[in-house]
Amino acid sequence: MVEVRAGELVEQLGGELLGDPALVLRRIAGLESADAESISFLANPKLEPLLQATRAGCLIVRGALRDAVRARPAAILVDDPYLYYARLSQWWAQRLRPPPAAGVHPSAVVEPGAKLHPQASIGALAYVGHRAAIAAGAVVGAQAHVGADAQLGAGCRIAARACIGAGSRLGERCVVQGGAVIGGDGFGFAPAAGGRWEKIEQLGAVRLGDAVEVGANSCIDRGALGDTVIGDGVKLDNLIHIAHNVEIGAHTAMAACVGVAGSTRIGAHCSFGGQVGIVGHIRIVDRVHVAAGAKVLRSILQPGRYGGAFPVDAAGTWEKNAVLVRQLGVLRARLRALENRSG
Amino acid sequence: MVEVRAGELVEQLGGELLGDPALVLRRIAGLESADAESISFLANPKLEPLLQATRAGCLIVRGALRDAVRARPAAILVDDPYLYYARLSQWWAQRLRPPPAAGVHPSAVVEPGAKLHPQASIGALAYVGHRAAIAAGAVVGAQAHVGADAQLGAGCRIAARACIGAGSRLGERCVVQGGAVIGGDGFGFAPAAGGRWEKIEQLGAVRLGDAVEVGANSCIDRGALGDTVIGDGVKLDNLIHIAHNVEIGAHTAMAACVGVAGSTRIGAHCSFGGQVGIVGHIRIVDRVHVAAGAKVLRSILQPGRYGGAFPVDAAGTWEKNAVLVRQLGVLRARLRALENRSG
Amino acid sequence: MVEVRAGELVEQLGGELLGDPALVLRRIAGLESADAESISFLANPKLEPLLQATRAGCLIVRGALRDAVRARPAAILVDDPYLYYARLSQWWAQRLRPPPAAGVHPSAVVEPGAKLHPQASIGALAYVGHRAAIAAGAVVGAQAHVGADAQLGAGCRIAARACIGAGSRLGERCVVQGGAVIGGDGFGFAPAAGGRWEKIEQLGAVRLGDAVEVGANSCIDRGALGDTVIGDGVKLDNLIHIAHNVEIGAHTAMAACVGVAGSTRIGAHCSFGGQVGIVGHIRIVDRVHVAAGAKVLRSILQPGRYGGAFPVDAAGTWEKNAVLVRQLGVLRARLRALENRSG
Repeated sequence: MVEVRAGELVEQLGGELLGDPALVLRRIAGLESADAESISFLANPKLEPLLQATRAGCLIVRGALRDAVRARPAAILVDDPYLYYARLSQWWAQRLRPPPAAGVHPSAVVEPGAKLHPQASIGALAYVGHRAAIAAGAVVGAQAHVGADAQLGAGCRIAARACIGAGSRLGERCVVQGGAVIGGDGFGFAPAAGGRWEKIEQLGAVRLGDAVEVGANSCIDRGALGDTVIGDGVKLDNLIHIAHNVEIGAHTAMAACVGVAGSTRIGAHCSFGGQVGIVGHIRIVDRVHVAAGAKVLRSILQPGRYGGAFPVDAAGTWEKNAVLVRQLGVLRARLRALENRSG
Repeated sequence: MVEVRAGELVEQLGGELLGDPALVLRRIAGLESADAESISFLANPKLEPLLQATRAGCLIVRGALRDAVRARPAAILVDDPYLYYARLSQWWAQRLRPPPAAGVHPSAVVEPGAKLHPQASIGALAYVGHRAAIAAGAVVGAQAHVGADAQLGAGCRIAARACIGAGSRLGERCVVQGGAVIGGDGFGFAPAAGGRWEKIEQLGAVRLGDAVEVGANSCIDRGALGDTVIGDGVKLDNLIHIAHNVEIGAHTAMAACVGVAGSTRIGAHCSFGGQVGIVGHIRIVDRVHVAAGAKVLRSILQPGRYGGAFPVDAAGTWEKNAVLVRQLGVLRARLRALENRSG
Repeated sequence: MVEVRAGELVEQLGGELLGDPALVLRRIAGLESADAESISFLANPKLEPLLQATRAGCLIVRGALRDAVRARPAAILVDDPYLYYARLSQWWAQRLRPPPAAGVHPSAVVEPGAKLHPQASIGALAYVGHRAAIAAGAVVGAQAHVGADAQLGAGCRIAARACIGAGSRLGERCVVQGGAVIGGDGFGFAPAAGGRWEKIEQLGAVRLGDAVEVGANSCIDRGALGDTVIGDGVKLDNLIHIAHNVEIGAHTAMAACVGVAGSTRIGAHCSFGGQVGIVGHIRIVDRVHVAAGAKVLRSILQPGRYGGAFPVDAAGTWEKNAVLVRQLGVLRARLRALENRSG
């Protein structure tokens, strides 16, 4: 359990405190579930109507709401309440779930030639391959896998049962969730006699910049010849597929279940909704935002917002429209015939 | 190998036996592959034409088919043959693959403070974290992971290499297939200076009711502040993504590759076909059924059947129609012009 | 590091060498990133313009390009440069990452009754269940799982943290990438009183032919009664779902994130783009090719190319068209009214 006084928080995280610095806070909560020992935040202006009703002991708000929070036990005025909440969550997590002690669990297997910083932590039943290098403050979870020649930068957190394949190189402060597989073979085969497929061994690796996050059970394949490259600050949600030789620019974010086919180059500061599909060998420039479910079948060379999913409809209606879409050519021909007649 | 007499089965599972109680059965089989030592079932009325041709020694059928099966070596008359088959499969599996003996495999790692019921079974190379609690009859498979403070109810089956993250709470008789990750971090980031993303630590947990099943390599993320909550009897197939703070009502079923974005609330007794996508922060009421591939982009407030996928077509035809969809605005304008002229 | 002379390569892999057999090659590279110590290949005629500019020391080309490469330090003339590259990549990988020595790592757990060929290799913290049989040259990676009664043919490569469930049978030379789960339970439940689901235990297994490849975090479920069957030479990319009792014919390839529902039978020599969805209980004949993102909702009984995804569009345009699709019935009615009036 975490217990902190409002004054302490402001000392650590900044902001202007109104009200009682001695107020004890025991949880972070949303506006509606907060109680007198909760700290909550108001980031979305649409939620301002909830401000009077919330029972939160301490509220994080923009300075413009100074008057609205003056009567509360405590409030913290900041420029960006959502960002402040993010930093508060980090502070809280450090106390709630302190990182494991440095050192190697006796049940872990560390192969000869691995270079472990004395401030790194290797969990129970984890595996660290030959010549792997693990920097200060990195945490390798229980049953996680770090292959031969892999490199983990300072402060990386590899969750339980994540897999960092041989030769992968991660920058500093990367987070890899459970079940993620970094460095599986790219999907490469040459057609051979009789319709057989001849495997193309994948000789490249995966490189992640600093502060990359990879979600649970996501996959980033190693390159065929060169590397698959994920830029600084890229955030990938769960069950994402990144094929071989893809490049993703800095600070691009992808929601769950996105698939990116081989050799595609994606710019920086892009975002992709859930289940977006992106074909191979195309280019997407910086600051492209694609809504959930859309299929990117060609390069996108202009920044902006893109969509491509149809919303569900009642089953009967949908089926009729789906049939009509197949008759669009006929409809157009009939329209043209009418135009000719009336013209 | 399992070997059982027809009479024994009926004693254990109920139903009215016709024919020879001493008939020996050695496998459960479909109607077409059954032989004289097979027990088979007829649940789908469309398959009644197969009834005469099947060589099954014993058939499970509705009472209404009494006359049609009278000449068989044996038959079992029941109210619901498919449900009877389900229970038969359970009885069979208990004998074919008896659960492992209680106790902890010597290669498993159990951290101090974990509370293991003496009737629980912890497999080879499994990991059980600090203060985790595992109830009677629970089975943790080889190389599976149960994080600190996690709770497994009585009779839970955690398959080999599944991962139950720290603080997750499972009810009784849950089944988690291999590679599933319960309790990965939700995908939460606040925008910061320079387009960077600041991680929001996920402080909530995952709660599963009783008799929940989670498929292979599916992911259920922990909540940001509160919990992600899966109701009693929910069945999730493989490669499903359930984001943070989602709530799913009792007995809802999802086929493989479904993705549900954050904070969405789904009712009870719903069903979702494969690859359905559901955006975040919406509500779906009880008894909603969404066909495979549809994208739910808004709340669904009426029970019923919904669809939203287009069927494949020959590539050339499809491409023409896909272009026409982009010209629908033009087609409508031309139609309007004609209407105006002819009006 | 690999170092080889051009002459040696041709001795091992065939082809006609032009130029200097003593030329030392230290990497395989694409045309654009190649240097004087690189061997590269030209397979795609569209890339011929790059041929003069590439700095590759040795080029693999078709015989027809003999004159174009005559001035190079070295070139190898072959019938099929891409296939030659595939074999070269295999030769290279053997030297770059020699397979682990035969034997069982002391940290692995091998249950009584398992039959390991002395030329098989079992990695650190791997698990091999009772009565499992592992043939000559098979490699089970670190932390991988081979369940009871499973069979691995000669030369199989099971990557770190892959899972071969109990009773699965793999032919020779199969490759299973990290995190794949072969033999999870199929998704089978019978409706019971109160809308509950009664589990149907999955009593079948998974059978893979020879030279099957299964990508990272893909899932192939065991059959309900019979087996799920994957033919020789089938190649499955990452995050693919193959449900229970599916059959896939020889040499069919599926890109990432494809989902195939239960009991569907797919022919040989088919291909499926990323994120294709295929419903259950249908049949797809040989030599069907389905483009990325399409949904196969009925049997496909004619070989050929099929499509079904809409490309993204600018968000505003897309939303207008998505609304128009829902009004297609109305548009058609208006068109008919006009036709009646003008007719």
